[in-house]
Amino acid sequence: MHKFDINYCNNCGNEIRQEIPEGDQKLRDVCTQCGAIHYQNPKIITGCLVEHNDKILLCKRSIEPQSGKWTLPAGFMENSETTMQGAARETMEEANASITNINLYAVYDIPHISQVYMMYRAQLKSEEFSPGIESLEVALFERKNIPWELLAFSVIKEILIKYYEDLDKGSFSLHTGIITAEMKQHLSKRPDGF
Amino acid sequence: MHKFDINYCNNCGNEIRQEIPEGDQKLRDVCTQCGAIHYQNPKIITGCLVEHNDKILLCKRSIEPQSGKWTLPAGFMENSETTMQGAARETMEEANASITNINLYAVYDIPHISQVYMMYRAQLKSEEFSPGIESLEVALFERKNIPWELLAFSVIKEILIKYYEDLDKGSFSLHTGIITAEMKQHLSKRPDGF
Repeated sequence: MHKFDINYCNNCGNEIRQEIPEGDQKLRDVCTQCGAIHYQNPKIITGCLVEHNDKILLCKRSIEPQSGKWTLPAGFMENSETTMQGAARETMEEANASITNINLYAVYDIPHISQVYMMYRAQLKSEEFSPGIESLEVALFERKNIPWELLAFSVIKEILIKYYEDLDKGSFSLHTGIITAEMKQHLSKRPDGF
Repeated sequence: MHKFDINYCNNCGNEIRQEIPEGDQKLRDVCTQCGAIHYQNPKIITGCLVEHNDKILLCKRSIEPQSGKWTLPAGFMENSETTMQGAARETMEEANASITNINLYAVYDIPHISQVYMMYRAQLKSEEFSPGIESLEVALFERKNIPWELLAFSVIKEILIKYYEDLDKGSFSLHTGIITAEMKQHLSKRPDGF
């Protein structure tokens, strides 16, 4: 959805060629006419693990990828917002849910798709939520009912595991980690001990 | 350097117009011909606060913006790397310095320029470093010699203040914050108590 070929220059419309600009170490998309360099950089996904009493809020995706699978509300961070504002905005867009007490909880790198997840832990302001346009269903889940085998993304599964481990310990701390392509094969399995 | 006008489609070279795509809430650059949507998203700057004995490593910038001012080694995160790999790469590129014991230390939003800083705290592997192509000079600074009035960026100044506060407390924790455009006016001032 965010990816397509870079064949032409955004600036002047002329053709692109791959070359290593002066002082650079990497091949870049450079315009043959105006010289504009079209850098491509990782994108931030920001979202929320929303608590309410002893439950957490999950959204069933209505869009690809992973339509029909469950996830935490999250999406691409937009220009001119903070990561926290983006997390709250995505929670409103996908779950029509207002949140409070928002703290950074997890930073996960996914280098094979050039994404960085920045997930906040937050509390629901009131028991009001409903599916946004990118969700088929939104619901609060008790721990015993988490649909482990039907989660959309490995990173979300990892963060939920860390969350319940922290809950058992009674203390929450920032988690960081790396998600690899190979982890996807475990996505349909319930994690050990859960 | 990373910014220019989006006038033409990267994919097919035809003209762009601004419109709100179906299911979206924001004006985007959309191709009038192939329909490709050219999203623009915040970029991650990743880098390191490198310690060695009681000193920290600063680089004097050889490039704009803020050429001639001092900063921590940091730069745009690249596709296919982790934030930590990016931080180590930038430290090598700008200071020819190898680092170890790398931990996430600060996450700062700069919404007015759509950047997110992810800074790691690390230790120098050995007392070997030298200016990379984007640095005029690289040096280890004792606390009393930090060039507070000659720092390149507000975010770096904020992170250094947090660092010395943590050092006084004897414990380091992750810092998060927001840098506003107005903070730039304090850049040439030594912070209170330093």
